[in-house]
Amino acid sequence: MNRTIEWDGEAIVIIDQTLLPSEERLLRLGDVPTLAEAIRSLRIRGAPALGVAGALGIALAVRQAQERGTDLLLAADRAAAVLAATRPTAVNLRWGIEQARRALAAGSEAVAERAVAILEADVQTNRKIAERGADWLDTLRARQQRRLRILTHCNTGALACVELGTALGVIQVAYSRGAVEDILATETRPLLQGARLTAWELQRVRIPFRLVADAAAPSLIARGMVDVAVVGADRIAANGDVANKIGTYPLALAARRAGVPFVVVAPETTVDRDMASGQDIPIEERPEEEVLGFGSLRVAPAEARALNPAFDVTPAELISAIITEDRVIDPAVPTQGAVAPASVHG
Amino acid sequence: MNRTIEWDGEAIVIIDQTLLPSEERLLRLGDVPTLAEAIRSLRIRGAPALGVAGALGIALAVRQAQERGTDLLLAADRAAAVLAATRPTAVNLRWGIEQARRALAAGSEAVAERAVAILEADVQTNRKIAERGADWLDTLRARQQRRLRILTHCNTGALACVELGTALGVIQVAYSRGAVEDILATETRPLLQGARLTAWELQRVRIPFRLVADAAAPSLIARGMVDVAVVGADRIAANGDVANKIGTYPLALAARRAGVPFVVVAPETTVDRDMASGQDIPIEERPEEEVLGFGSLRVAPAEARALNPAFDVTPAELISAIITEDRVIDPAVPTQGAVAPASVHG
Repeated sequence: MNRTIEWDGEAIVIIDQTLLPSEERLLRLGDVPTLAEAIRSLRIRGAPALGVAGALGIALAVRQAQERGTDLLLAADRAAAVLAATRPTAVNLRWGIEQARRALAAGSEAVAERAVAILEADVQTNRKIAERGADWLDTLRARQQRRLRILTHCNTGALACVELGTALGVIQVAYSRGAVEDILATETRPLLQGARLTAWELQRVRIPFRLVADAAAPSLIARGMVDVAVVGADRIAANGDVANKIGTYPLALAARRAGVPFVVVAPETTVDRDMASGQDIPIEERPEEEVLGFGSLRVAPAEARALNPAFDVTPAELISAIITEDRVIDPAVPTQGAVAPASVHG
Repeated sequence: MNRTIEWDGEAIVIIDQTLLPSEERLLRLGDVPTLAEAIRSLRIRGAPALGVAGALGIALAVRQAQERGTDLLLAADRAAAVLAATRPTAVNLRWGIEQARRALAAGSEAVAERAVAILEADVQTNRKIAERGADWLDTLRARQQRRLRILTHCNTGALACVELGTALGVIQVAYSRGAVEDILATETRPLLQGARLTAWELQRVRIPFRLVADAAAPSLIARGMVDVAVVGADRIAANGDVANKIGTYPLALAARRAGVPFVVVAPETTVDRDMASGQDIPIEERPEEEVLGFGSLRVAPAEARALNPAFDVTPAELISAIITEDRVIDPAVPTQGAVAPASVHG
């Protein structure tokens, strides 16, 4: 598989995720407005991929300013403002933007170098996450003395990162170790990232799965059909509260009631130490049209209105483990804040 | 508005709900196989409407047998078997079928008379339910000292019954009394009865509302945007557990955690005294294709599989009140079984 996002030396190259699974089209994004549109319309998405996109966007702005002979710092600042405004919830985007901006102090060449380093680091980070997460699932499997039936939400695979993925990366490695019996993937309305993207990725690597309507997943947990829920994150507050794709919270509620482990998988860059709790995380409201239909198909009557929050917040106490490239955090044990180093035990 | 289902003396007339909201087409169903197909494909749906459809189906079978000079009892039995198998979860369907079959003992004329009486009774029942439910909401409104922000799920309006509806009937009457500030309606995947049918009904009576993705509703409850959730039921077990459209259970979980009342509205015919608890209620599995696409649009990759349970079960302890035409039941107080007469207090 091509990487989800690449830098060809002059422009950003992405797979247009809005066209999947019916069409695999590469897009070459040559300026910041085009990148901003691609982020807003979810041609590129997923917290880790957005971190890379943010950094590459600054590299793009600096490169163009250099060609035109305009002010590099001003160009970087303008690009940062435009890109940061595209998606308010995922913290990785701002992190990537900030990393690339800071690199400008070391010269214009350093910006693209830093951005590409972030891209390469994402690949390594995801490999570490996937191994650590699969180890965690192996322990669970040993305790349950059976292969695991795993539920996942939205798309947290290669398409959400550069390669492999976070939660879906863990699931893939666990599957390769023979630890998985069954995978249920939510379709993830309104934009159906599960039915389109997760399904496409799992088919490519020949891992069997079944899609379920988002609203069906909680009762499938209640009926004893799920051994563990594994999801990603768009921002993790200092207290361990997790903002993730809308529909994550009801899965955590159902998992808690059924005594099923609820696991969040994300890189350390998703942790926002400046955000005390999940209540403070800004929740992106997306266009009503996404709920009123799908793609070109309108379902609701003309003039119907909708409310379309893109994320929800799952309280730390409902989360069994947060797995990053460096550690396993138990947010239910708030030792000096759940995501502080003191709580490391994996 | 035309009634959702009628008997014209020779055939059953329904609005084809699969075409709404884009087209309002009446269908005339002249024999049992056609009716069975209409039920299976949800051209007619909703627990109370299915009770009426079951009874009218037996009337249709008896009428045709009489014209052909074949055995009436045999015709009724065969029709009963075919119709009962169409939807396993809604108990009203079987109830309607059984009522009409029993009427045959009083002669062939009595069957159609009984079926039409069930249809007319449904209208009266829903008026009583709506008034009683609106009274309950008035009490809540007085306690909260503010107009109510109501969340509802699927379609429980006139289209689920003959006229007015159950949960949506309550909401309409509450609205007419000035008790409602806001209505959130879930789109209700996979068949989008909320986005298509509830939206269509509310627009016709000029009641404002906003649609939300099913997975968004629990976090909107958590964010304090909902004062009460009001839903219907397809079967109520003797202990007060409620089978209803898939996605009801996560709403009840979120409501409980937020301290928001969770109210079920249904006629007495939805109570199944022979079913001790919700665990025993058969859950209909519907075709995978409903989840793999969106309306006429295929979304998931070819060869993707899905799991499509049409209903879930909400435990009695999560339900604040079950409101019928006769009473208000508090299922959390299991006096001799929550739905037994001893627990009546409304």
